Amino acid sequence: MTRRLDGATVVGRPVRVGLDVGGTKTEALALDAAGRVVARHRCVTVPGPSGVVDTVGRAVAALCGPSGEVSAESVGVGIPGQIEVPSGRVRHAVNLGLRDLDLARILERELGVPVRVENDVKAAAIGACRIRGRERESLVYLNLGTGVAAGVVVDGVLQRGVGGVAGEIGHISVDPRGETCPCGQRGCLETVAGGGAVARRWGGGDLPVLEMFDAADRGEGRAMRLRREFAAGVAAAVRLIVLTLDVPTVLLGGGLVHLGDRLRDVVVDELRRAGEASDFLHSLRIDERLEMLPPSSGAPAVGAAHLGVGMRRADVG
Amino acid sequence: MTRRLDGATVVGRPVRVGLDVGGTKTEALALDAAGRVVARHRCVTVPGPSGVVDTVGRAVAALCGPSGEVSAESVGVGIPGQIEVPSGRVRHAVNLGLRDLDLARILERELGVPVRVENDVKAAAIGACRIRGRERESLVYLNLGTGVAAGVVVDGVLQRGVGGVAGEIGHISVDPRGETCPCGQRGCLETVAGGGAVARRWGGGDLPVLEMFDAADRGEGRAMRLRREFAAGVAAAVRLIVLTLDVPTVLLGGGLVHLGDRLRDVVVDELRRAGEASDFLHSLRIDERLEMLPPSSGAPAVGAAHLGVGMRRADVG
Repeated sequence: MTRRLDGATVVGRPVRVGLDVGGTKTEALALDAAGRVVARHRCVTVPGPSGVVDTVGRAVAALCGPSGEVSAESVGVGIPGQIEVPSGRVRHAVNLGLRDLDLARILERELGVPVRVENDVKAAAIGACRIRGRERESLVYLNLGTGVAAGVVVDGVLQRGVGGVAGEIGHISVDPRGETCPCGQRGCLETVAGGGAVARRWGGGDLPVLEMFDAADRGEGRAMRLRREFAAGVAAAVRLIVLTLDVPTVLLGGGLVHLGDRLRDVVVDELRRAGEASDFLHSLRIDERLEMLPPSSGAPAVGAAHLGVGMRRADVG
Repeated sequence: MTRRLDGATVVGRPVRVGLDVGGTKTEALALDAAGRVVARHRCVTVPGPSGVVDTVGRAVAALCGPSGEVSAESVGVGIPGQIEVPSGRVRHAVNLGLRDLDLARILERELGVPVRVENDVKAAAIGACRIRGRERESLVYLNLGTGVAAGVVVDGVLQRGVGGVAGEIGHISVDPRGETCPCGQRGCLETVAGGGAVARRWGGGDLPVLEMFDAADRGEGRAMRLRREFAAGVAAAVRLIVLTLDVPTVLLGGGLVHLGDRLRDVVVDELRRAGEASDFLHSLRIDERLEMLPPSSGAPAVGAAHLGVGMRRADVG
C-alpha cells in the first residue's frame, strides 16, 4: 500500500528514502529536501538474504512510482540486528534470517544509489530527534518491542560506541534470581520489560501484551501481577538511563507504545512509588522526564532516511 | 607536607592549583603551563564550612611558598558531593558537613583568583583523561571508594547531564531482594561494590576491604563469600557501563585501587565467568576493557586543576 502525501510537489525532485525492515512488515517513506514525508509505503517483509533485498527493492520502486516519476537520491535501511557501520554489513539479524550479509553494497548495486544500513533502534533514535526538531538535544530513546534496547543521543549525536553496542540495555541484569534470558544471563531487563517475555509468560493470542493489560483492567490477579512486573522493569530501565546519563528526556517508542497512556500510566506509577521510598530518586523527578513517541511516527524509517545525509562523524562510527 | 618537584622552574610563573578535598585528607597540587605537576601538598581536611575554606586556603598557600614565590592563576576544587556547575555552589557534601554553600564564590574572595568547584569523581574523570594524554577519548572512570560512582567522558567531554547526576550508577539497583541502601532503594550497586558497604558487612579495623581480601586469601569462608559478592558487584557495574555506552575503556580508580592486581583479578574472574554463560557477553570482551588507574595518580586533583582552563561547554554544564 503506497500513500503519496504530496506527490505533485516531488515529481522530478529527488527524495531520500528510509525503510524500517521489521520481522513481519516493512515501512518505507520518502522525504523531500526539507525533511517532510512526501510518500509512504507498507509491505510484508520477505525474510532471508534475497527476500530482504527484494523487499527493499519493491518498496523503493513503489515509492518512486511505476515509471520512476520520483528519483531516490539515497536509501537508508533500519534492520533489527547488529550492523557494522559505516560499511552497512549485517553481522546478524536473527528475525530476518540474515547473517554476515554485505547488505548496503548489495542494495547499492541493485538500486544504483548510495545506501546506508543501521540498527533499527539507533535509526529510530535519530528519527525521533528529527521529528522533535531539536537538533542538539540529549535524549535516550527507549524501544519497547519484542526486546528492549535504547538509542543514546548526546547533544544531537547518536552514540554507537566502539562496536555499535551502546544502548543494549535490555541485557543488563537487574535481578540475579530472575528468569533466564536467551542471552545466557539471568534477570535481564528484557526478561521483564520486553514484549516477547510478556508474551511467553502470559500466553494468549496475537496481541498478548494488550490482552494482559485488558485482563489486568478487569482485575484478573495474574494479569495484574504481570503488568506490575512489566511496569517495574520499564521503570528500572528508565531509572538506569537517568542515573547513568542524566538526560532530560527518556522517550518511549517501539511496538508497545500502541498501548498509549495505559503504558505510560503504569510506568509513571512505578517511578513515583520508587520515589516515595527514596528522597534521592524523588529529587530527580524521573517520572517527569518520560515522554512517548506517537505510535505511527515512523521514527525508524525517518531516521533511516536521514542516515545518508549530513551525517556527523559519530553517526558513522 | 609539601613536596616541590621542580621548584626552580616555576618561581615567577603562574601555576594552576587543583585540590581533592576528601572526608579525612586533602591532596593539592600545582600544574605548570604544560600541565606537569610541579608541587604537591597533603594535609588533614577540617570539616564544616569554615574548616573546608581554611583547608583550601592553607593548602594553596603551602603550594605557593611562604612568601608567595609562586602565584596561582586558578584554583579548582574536587568535593565529594553534589555541586552546581558552573556556579560552584555545593548543594550537599555529607562527609564534609557542607550544605548549600557558595564555595566557589567564598574561595574567590579569600584567594583572589578564579575558583571552580566540581564533584570529585567528575574531576577525577577529567584528570584521568589528562594523565592518559588522550584528549578525545571516550571512557568511563569507575570510582570505587566508600561509595560507587562514575565519570562519563564521551569524545573527551565530561558528561554532567542536566543536573550533574550523570554517572551516579552506584544507586542503580541490581537486586530487588538486596540490602537496603541509605538512599532508600534496595540492592543498589553501592551496597555490594562500595567500600563502605563491605566495611559494614565485614566489620574489622581501619582497612576493612584489605583485611577482607587478606582473610579470603587465607581461605576464610565468610571473607571468600564477601569478596566474591563484592567482585560480582563491581563486574555488574562494568557490564552496565559497557552495555549502555560501549566505551573501549572502563578505568577503575578510587581508594580501593590500592588493592592493585588483587582487585583487578577478582573482577576479571567475575567478568569471564559471566562471559562463559553468555555468548553475547563473551563477544563483547568486557574484561579486556578494564584498566586501573595507579593508586597515587592524583587524578581528582589533576582534574580539578584543569577545571578552569580550556573548559569545553559540556564541562561547565
